[in-house]
Amino acid sequence: MTRIQYQDCIDSCLKCMNACNVSYVSSLKEYDLEQLRECIRMDRECADICAYAIQAMTRQSPFVADICRLCAEICEATARESGRYKLTHCQECINACLKCADACRQISEAVAILA
Amino acid sequence: MTRIQYQDCIDSCLKCMNACNVSYVSSLKEYDLEQLRECIRMDRECADICAYAIQAMTRQSPFVADICRLCAEICEATARESGRYKLTHCQECINACLKCADACRQISEAVAILA
Amino acid sequence: MTRIQYQDCIDSCLKCMNACNVSYVSSLKEYDLEQLRECIRMDRECADICAYAIQAMTRQSPFVADICRLCAEICEATARESGRYKLTHCQECINACLKCADACRQISEAVAILA
Amino acid sequence: MTRIQYQDCIDSCLKCMNACNVSYVSSLKEYDLEQLRECIRMDRECADICAYAIQAMTRQSPFVADICRLCAEICEATARESGRYKLTHCQECINACLKCADACRQISEAVAILA
Repeated sequence: MTRIQYQDCIDSCLKCMNACNVSYVSSLKEYDLEQLRECIRMDRECADICAYAIQAMTRQSPFVADICRLCAEICEATARESGRYKLTHCQECINACLKCADACRQISEAVAILA
Repeated sequence: MTRIQYQDCIDSCLKCMNACNVSYVSSLKEYDLEQLRECIRMDRECADICAYAIQAMTRQSPFVADICRLCAEICEATARESGRYKLTHCQECINACLKCADACRQISEAVAILA
Repeated sequence: MTRIQYQDCIDSCLKCMNACNVSYVSSLKEYDLEQLRECIRMDRECADICAYAIQAMTRQSPFVADICRLCAEICEATARESGRYKLTHCQECINACLKCADACRQISEAVAILA
Repeated sequence: MTRIQYQDCIDSCLKCMNACNVSYVSSLKEYDLEQLRECIRMDRECADICAYAIQAMTRQSPFVADICRLCAEICEATARESGRYKLTHCQECINACLKCADACRQISEAVAILA
């Protein structure tokens, strides 16, 4: 597994982290904050695992398969939670989370096969 | 799951992160550095997942079960790697890693049962 | 600077991270969420720099003086923000933040003198 | 300060984190490991602050000015350390670190002016 092969997944994780953090900051400014408690919490969870996965891929961690699988699960859960809201930043978050989940599952499976 | 119940595991993770980072820094000063390549790499991996697990527990992450399971696996792998060396900081690392792995597995199972 | 000398500051940072994350989670459950937007945001900021400072101290980072100074500033800002609320978790956060800020400034100055 | 304005700096930080982690992993595989002790240590320091700065920018942290200034300092120190080696990954690290330092100083000054 070379660093070039990780590049797409790293990019997807960065976009996902960005979308989640934008949604986090935007949610905290919303008038209807009351509804967004769980969304705010999940956005942070997702941003944190993405940051962790990016670092792990760039340092070619021997645990990339497990870390990316966990990242995919958290991304999917965050996409589900974001799907409960019509807000633009939540909708953008869904797309970024699902793309990231796909990319992470591909890496996870590719690395597991090579191991 | 209250924060009090996480306290032992948080303490074990902190001790493990500390032991791993001490072993990392100490390894980089060793005369016989040549032998310690993989030890250095694993020490960093283990310190990073411990830091991540500590944050996740203190913020009562809904993903604590998965995160602590991953932490346990990385701790066990780091203990195995450290077991290849007679150096004091490696031996201290084994103990801290195994205690942390135990504590993380307990949390992981307790949270999974409650879920 | 040995690791023993960092121990008090590491403990203060851990307590502060814990208090901030507890306040973060608790704030997101409050009825009066509306008032707590900035508190939630600062709690996360403070927890993140504390996590970063803990890792830096355990790995004896050559940048500990700067990192701990930054941590002290963020802790003080978080204490000020928390001071605007009467909630128990906010009051506990103030104490933990101020103790952590003190411990970080002491480390920062001690390391700067030794450098 | 909108998220678009951070984009260049986020990209520079990601490239720098990648270059540092590649240099870290590559150094640990070098025959002449003996000479690279300090390089390995600095690569990790730099990757960690870059990861932290990226997260801070994407969540529009109120402390971006200070965090990016610290990131610039660590990048510059890592570039100086990498300058002691002729290895390709060290030379690539210098470029990435200096570009990241520039981008971080620009953000730091822009944010400070706006504050």
